[in-house]
Amino acid sequence: MNNKEKDLQSIFKYVDEHVPLYVERLAEAVAIESVSAEKEKFNELIRMAEWTKNKLELLGTVCELVYPKSKQLDNGEFVKLPPVLLGQLGSDPKKVTLLIYGHLDSDGWDTEPFVLVEKDGKLYGRGSTDDKGPVIAWINIIEAFHCLKIEMPVNVKFCFELMEESGSVGLEDVLRCKKDEGWFQDVDCACISDNYWVGTKKPCITYGLRGLCYTNVEVTCSNQDLHSGVYGGSVHEAMSDLIYLLDNLVDKNGKILIPKIYDKVDPLTEKERDRYESIDFDCESYRKSIGASKLLYDNKAELLMHRWRYPSLSIHGISGAFSGKGEKTVIPCKVTGKFSIRLVPSQNPEEIAHLVEQHIKQLHKQRGSLNKCHVYSSFGPHWLTDVDHPNFLAGRQAIRRVYQVEPDLTREGGSIPVTLALQKYTGKNVVLLPIGAADDMAHSQNEKFNKDNYILGMKMLGAYFYELAEHIIKDN
Amino acid sequence: MNNKEKDLQSIFKYVDEHVPLYVERLAEAVAIESVSAEKEKFNELIRMAEWTKNKLELLGTVCELVYPKSKQLDNGEFVKLPPVLLGQLGSDPKKVTLLIYGHLDSDGWDTEPFVLVEKDGKLYGRGSTDDKGPVIAWINIIEAFHCLKIEMPVNVKFCFELMEESGSVGLEDVLRCKKDEGWFQDVDCACISDNYWVGTKKPCITYGLRGLCYTNVEVTCSNQDLHSGVYGGSVHEAMSDLIYLLDNLVDKNGKILIPKIYDKVDPLTEKERDRYESIDFDCESYRKSIGASKLLYDNKAELLMHRWRYPSLSIHGISGAFSGKGEKTVIPCKVTGKFSIRLVPSQNPEEIAHLVEQHIKQLHKQRGSLNKCHVYSSFGPHWLTDVDHPNFLAGRQAIRRVYQVEPDLTREGGSIPVTLALQKYTGKNVVLLPIGAADDMAHSQNEKFNKDNYILGMKMLGAYFYELAEHIIKDN
Repeated sequence: MNNKEKDLQSIFKYVDEHVPLYVERLAEAVAIESVSAEKEKFNELIRMAEWTKNKLELLGTVCELVYPKSKQLDNGEFVKLPPVLLGQLGSDPKKVTLLIYGHLDSDGWDTEPFVLVEKDGKLYGRGSTDDKGPVIAWINIIEAFHCLKIEMPVNVKFCFELMEESGSVGLEDVLRCKKDEGWFQDVDCACISDNYWVGTKKPCITYGLRGLCYTNVEVTCSNQDLHSGVYGGSVHEAMSDLIYLLDNLVDKNGKILIPKIYDKVDPLTEKERDRYESIDFDCESYRKSIGASKLLYDNKAELLMHRWRYPSLSIHGISGAFSGKGEKTVIPCKVTGKFSIRLVPSQNPEEIAHLVEQHIKQLHKQRGSLNKCHVYSSFGPHWLTDVDHPNFLAGRQAIRRVYQVEPDLTREGGSIPVTLALQKYTGKNVVLLPIGAADDMAHSQNEKFNKDNYILGMKMLGAYFYELAEHIIKDN
Repeated sequence: MNNKEKDLQSIFKYVDEHVPLYVERLAEAVAIESVSAEKEKFNELIRMAEWTKNKLELLGTVCELVYPKSKQLDNGEFVKLPPVLLGQLGSDPKKVTLLIYGHLDSDGWDTEPFVLVEKDGKLYGRGSTDDKGPVIAWINIIEAFHCLKIEMPVNVKFCFELMEESGSVGLEDVLRCKKDEGWFQDVDCACISDNYWVGTKKPCITYGLRGLCYTNVEVTCSNQDLHSGVYGGSVHEAMSDLIYLLDNLVDKNGKILIPKIYDKVDPLTEKERDRYESIDFDCESYRKSIGASKLLYDNKAELLMHRWRYPSLSIHGISGAFSGKGEKTVIPCKVTGKFSIRLVPSQNPEEIAHLVEQHIKQLHKQRGSLNKCHVYSSFGPHWLTDVDHPNFLAGRQAIRRVYQVEPDLTREGGSIPVTLALQKYTGKNVVLLPIGAADDMAHSQNEKFNKDNYILGMKMLGAYFYELAEHIIKDN
């Protein structure tokens, strides 16, 4: 038995002996109300950063809290931002340096979210799976090395932020600044554990994300909101123009009606198709879990492909119109429809935004309404990487080691913008290595983290350190 | 010169000599922040009721503040309601008894709404024209009789409420209760001064209102809001189903697409058509005032008829969808579209609600979506009365006396539900006798009341007392 295997076994044993500590530690983190969207919780964000910094320092990490510049809101007000926690553990130039990203803020919640409750092997609480649990899993596993006095096989750099749930405001400023300082120079690869398995049983490793083109269509019919009693019957109402435009975006089968929108979608290869067939996923339980009567596809591969590798269009809502309870009889003067298209390889976001704009303008012209129509979009690209990159091979091997199973190779339908940011600032490969299950319900009222996922995930991350050291060949 | 003419001249002279007092009084009323929609302004509603009660009592009115029962909200909470101010001035059985309705609450406002500002003969302030101005005009003119020791030609009963801008909650309870007490028995007719001239120069008297059928269409696609990144491409989204339904309600020319919806609309007679031709109204200034590029009709009679005597459909908004600023990428699980149809003689509200429901269900079935679709409507009838009723003849003569012009006979496109309520509880004719101008902008940020309309309106209401005494023959 080689050293790696012996060490891993000691580490895994150590983990198994410390489960109550790990649960308690997660409870402590969950109890810190670090909700980034709520201004009055700002001090909790700081407290969460300090708590994590303290944990990392005890393991020998050199930490730094980097405060981004205040952000100016639309109303002119300046908002203070919480720090980004950066850390470095080890700087042996002969070792691979891994950059670990995670976030320590969480979403709002309605009822008692900050008390971790264990029930049937599930740990319920805000942030338990998104993303405090995975961050603490990293800390716990490094702690095991530390306590057992086993040398870490890699150097580690940490980048933990507190604004992920609020658009990661300030993060890019910090990354840019640290790049200028050369902080990323010795990084060999990066890892983000902030997404989920496709199902609840089989681990996966994620190599693709969809991009996004978010469009606002603004229609204006008058210089003020009008009363439908007084003005109804005399004006071309902005709402009916907007509804017409929104009704010509996607058909009842989910097909996007914008001309040329599918032109640049990569053709499906047989090899890629096979990948979907082997994935642990059940359409019917998926359907039941969201309470839908019927899905757009009832074939596993088709359904997964339409979530991950084909574009989709969703209409999110309308601002400027009545949206409250009750029965207000307004003719809104200016309404803004909001919809977005998830982008896939090799759609170019700017091109797509242009096609969307052309389509809307064409429809508005066809309708012949003299109401003003203004279209504008914001967008970000898809992400797709090589599943055979050494960083991925290390992740896949670590999963096999701990779970005795070949992981699913998956994509996600959403965007995790920090993935692209880390790739950009490090210039290195990024892997998404989730440890949470599909039914963890991040952001919902019942967010949980399975104790098994927590503990086995921790072990897998430990194995990943060793695999990285073996798979990645240092340039220098 | 008969007594009536002599008295009226004294009264008009008195009015002219007291303009500064009247402006100051209106300023006092505007300064009371009686916004019925804002809970924390409840005491201001009481203060407004007390202020008015005090003014009426000084004129010899016997007043009563009747508190409706608390209202239970959807969330189970009980909300206290402000009182309805009832009053009686005179009870000479030989005299006609007029019931005057008005409201003393107002709508919210963004900036400094509660300071009455005079500019170019216009009195700006929240409630100046809707409806504190007209209510105070009644008080002022009666005060003139009082101070001049001229006998009032009619008995007057007052019904002033403080919840009109919030759906007149509690009013019907009070009316029902007072009817049981016999309070309405001696009422011969009623008058509401709470609407506006059609233009800005020529007075009018209003004999018709449209009814309303307000429909909610609820579409549900899942048991929780979904993230468009994770789920987009796999579900039949409720929003696209709803947008489809809403897009099939009205065409770009304002024509309602619901089958049989026009069947019961009264045919137009030549006599009615002529009435529209003579009305003081200019399409182009109307268009400019609302800042529309083009109206649905550019012919005066057509435009007025489509505002008053034909039904119209407006889409007000969607609840349950994203309606904020920014770019949220939600797939809403349950969205409720809100639209309403203004009803006209002789459409039956229940029949219309049924046609609407049929149409929506038919569309949903055609589309073949398995998402749940639920439709429900609330409705109220139109109101139409006889312009040759003595109550109207009295109003028309009073206008002629003060303005030396034949008033426009108008309808309104909106509903003033209290009109139907007063008609129901008194069993007598109700007249709408506006004194504000079309450009008063009730509910907008620039609500104003022309000083001329205030003063001349006051005189007209004084003349109306005399005309009532002459035109209405007491039953007893």
